[in-house]
Amino acid sequence: MKAEIVSTGTELLLGETLNTSAHFLTGKLSALGIEVDYHTTIGDNPERLEQVLRQAIGRTDLLVTTGGLGPTVDDLTKELVAKVLDLKMELDPSSLEHIKQFFGRRKAPMPLNNEKQAYFPKGSKILPNHIGTAPGAIIEKNGKTVIILPGPPFEMTPMFDNYVWPVLQQKIEPDVERMNERVLKVFGMGESAIEEVLADLMGLPNLSMALLAKRAEMHIRLVVRSSKISEEAEEVLNRTEEEIRRRLGNKVFGRDQETMIGIVGQLLKNEQLTIATAESCTGGLLGAALTQEPGSSEFYLGGVVSYANSLKQGLLGVSAESLNKYGAVSEEVAKEMAAGIRSKAGSDLAISTTGIAGPDGGSAQKPVGLVYVGLAAPEGIQAEKIQLYGERESVRQLTVQAALNRVRVHMLNSERRIQSGDG
Amino acid sequence: MKAEIVSTGTELLLGETLNTSAHFLTGKLSALGIEVDYHTTIGDNPERLEQVLRQAIGRTDLLVTTGGLGPTVDDLTKELVAKVLDLKMELDPSSLEHIKQFFGRRKAPMPLNNEKQAYFPKGSKILPNHIGTAPGAIIEKNGKTVIILPGPPFEMTPMFDNYVWPVLQQKIEPDVERMNERVLKVFGMGESAIEEVLADLMGLPNLSMALLAKRAEMHIRLVVRSSKISEEAEEVLNRTEEEIRRRLGNKVFGRDQETMIGIVGQLLKNEQLTIATAESCTGGLLGAALTQEPGSSEFYLGGVVSYANSLKQGLLGVSAESLNKYGAVSEEVAKEMAAGIRSKAGSDLAISTTGIAGPDGGSAQKPVGLVYVGLAAPEGIQAEKIQLYGERESVRQLTVQAALNRVRVHMLNSERRIQSGDG
Repeated sequence: MKAEIVSTGTELLLGETLNTSAHFLTGKLSALGIEVDYHTTIGDNPERLEQVLRQAIGRTDLLVTTGGLGPTVDDLTKELVAKVLDLKMELDPSSLEHIKQFFGRRKAPMPLNNEKQAYFPKGSKILPNHIGTAPGAIIEKNGKTVIILPGPPFEMTPMFDNYVWPVLQQKIEPDVERMNERVLKVFGMGESAIEEVLADLMGLPNLSMALLAKRAEMHIRLVVRSSKISEEAEEVLNRTEEEIRRRLGNKVFGRDQETMIGIVGQLLKNEQLTIATAESCTGGLLGAALTQEPGSSEFYLGGVVSYANSLKQGLLGVSAESLNKYGAVSEEVAKEMAAGIRSKAGSDLAISTTGIAGPDGGSAQKPVGLVYVGLAAPEGIQAEKIQLYGERESVRQLTVQAALNRVRVHMLNSERRIQSGDG
Repeated sequence: MKAEIVSTGTELLLGETLNTSAHFLTGKLSALGIEVDYHTTIGDNPERLEQVLRQAIGRTDLLVTTGGLGPTVDDLTKELVAKVLDLKMELDPSSLEHIKQFFGRRKAPMPLNNEKQAYFPKGSKILPNHIGTAPGAIIEKNGKTVIILPGPPFEMTPMFDNYVWPVLQQKIEPDVERMNERVLKVFGMGESAIEEVLADLMGLPNLSMALLAKRAEMHIRLVVRSSKISEEAEEVLNRTEEEIRRRLGNKVFGRDQETMIGIVGQLLKNEQLTIATAESCTGGLLGAALTQEPGSSEFYLGGVVSYANSLKQGLLGVSAESLNKYGAVSEEVAKEMAAGIRSKAGSDLAISTTGIAGPDGGSAQKPVGLVYVGLAAPEGIQAEKIQLYGERESVRQLTVQAALNRVRVHMLNSERRIQSGDG
């Protein structure tokens, strides 16, 4: 099955808004083995939109549109899809009810122009919108499928996952060529270092391996093509994964949908350990990462954002002496911050960050990007010095990843010590 | 001048790589007053690429391509542009020299296939690449301009800024139509409510007004077209902005590049006030927002992430009685959290968040999305109850925006009281 994505919205053509929806959709469609041949982005211009829709429906099996479902006169996607497919527009009473309820919950009357959002090309399968007022739709005609989705990514992505994914899964014929894919995620090694270690695996005939640099991670993407979901392909992926993990060891922190924070949370849950945070340069980002997933209250107690030195002293008990002698960005202060929050919060582990996020505040001795990550555990207190590069937000995000990785490596090492009986 | 962007690269159609280049380029072209009508993204497929290039060159004045300049046989952008424009490919000796030097610096011989990167359509103006091996090119024929740029954003963006921007600036005739743009940002009002209040302004002949829903904000985008940067157009924008602000009042929090956090930071700096945070459901996101911009240490002291109730009591002094009687998500606890951190941190203002981010933990009395935002100030302590909708991460982000907006509105009101002498 061949697919095409059409995104509408003048904001996408002004450089204001990044088209993350097309990115999300191609990822999902590729995962289903559906080949995306074209993305097209156009503004809210009826003539151009109609022409693009006509061209797309003419050459593809599956057309996915995003945007143009709002209540204003600019929003014309449904109307033009109906025109191109020669279908009438019809009111869907249950969508109208949903939109009225949406405003009802907010104690507001439904504005008249929102009624437009309840009209669809005749024969549409309606896709509920649990976040906003614009439902989506799936339309089938003459062997073509058109899927109409709202523009805002936070409305579009849950609608796709809940209502479109299952429909597409059913459509996929079992004998279509599939890409059996696996992604291994690496922290703390660069592209060329990985390439050197894995060079001999990269030229294998039935396996494609690609390295992809992410902000704080490297991804190794393995693909085996097969005529169906084959055990053989899985077998090749398993063997390759095993070999890569053998060579890279702890540097591989996860695979596929696994994230650093997900892995760290799982390790903490498995061992029934709690953790607390003391943050300076990350300003709360580490706590935000630790509480990203539901269920984080099982292991995360909380922490202190000690941005000002007065709070490092007052809330964490960092000594004035260390602050004066070594400065706030130092191994000593990182250790005292971690020890301080561990004792205040009564947690098993505690992690701290202090560094120079920039762009100002750097010096020859302590350049922008210098960060200390402290870790307090029953086994003792340590701090790690890291030199990061990049803009302020990069330095902060990389610090969060480095801190989480510190916790991960610590727990893996403790585990191994316990298992091998030398701890 | 009308423009079109064509991005090639199979990685863009696998959902792996976000197309930030198209975003960057549309922003730059719009800023020059060049209207971008289409983006198209396609894989490294010669037939489709040729067809898309032919269509684009047929209907636009300026075509910008990214990608397909690598050394492999898949990389065909230059070759196909030459074919569509009926030009021969020619070796550029100085580019070849540059590529050889690139490998020389890395103490490696130049692989033979890299020689391909030194060939260009005849008559090209070559654009040097200071980062990688693939030079870009500008080609003019029959009144059409084609600009060929490399795919990796870190190679493409400096090449554009250094070599393409000046050329385009010269091309823009002084009497070309320009879009004079202004964006007003609104918090706490939905799309239809704004549309109703501004309906009569939306049909004006020389002004276009569009509403854009962001996750926690609405943007009102005003555009006045004029033959040059005219004072008259500025005047229309100013008058319209004034009228919108008169109607929407405090709901308008900023314009153009201004952000909620930027505005709040500026207000705090202007009044030389400090602030501290006590976060539960936001887990550190509020502190992270307040420390996003450099210079935030002028107003932000820090705070406590009291995720567990034990930390609400231990670090903030919230009473066991309130926690038992009203629960952690309550007006009383929000107030005690704000009061507690204000006293511990010694800040002028303090803001707190406690709520049910979901997806679990909701009940009939306290549904998912119920949030209290507390504010402690010299004038007293208050808490606001908010019901939010959406996924966990949306609820958390919206809570941060609501908390920042709470601070903003408080400061604007205090300001007005002081100015009018009734405070």
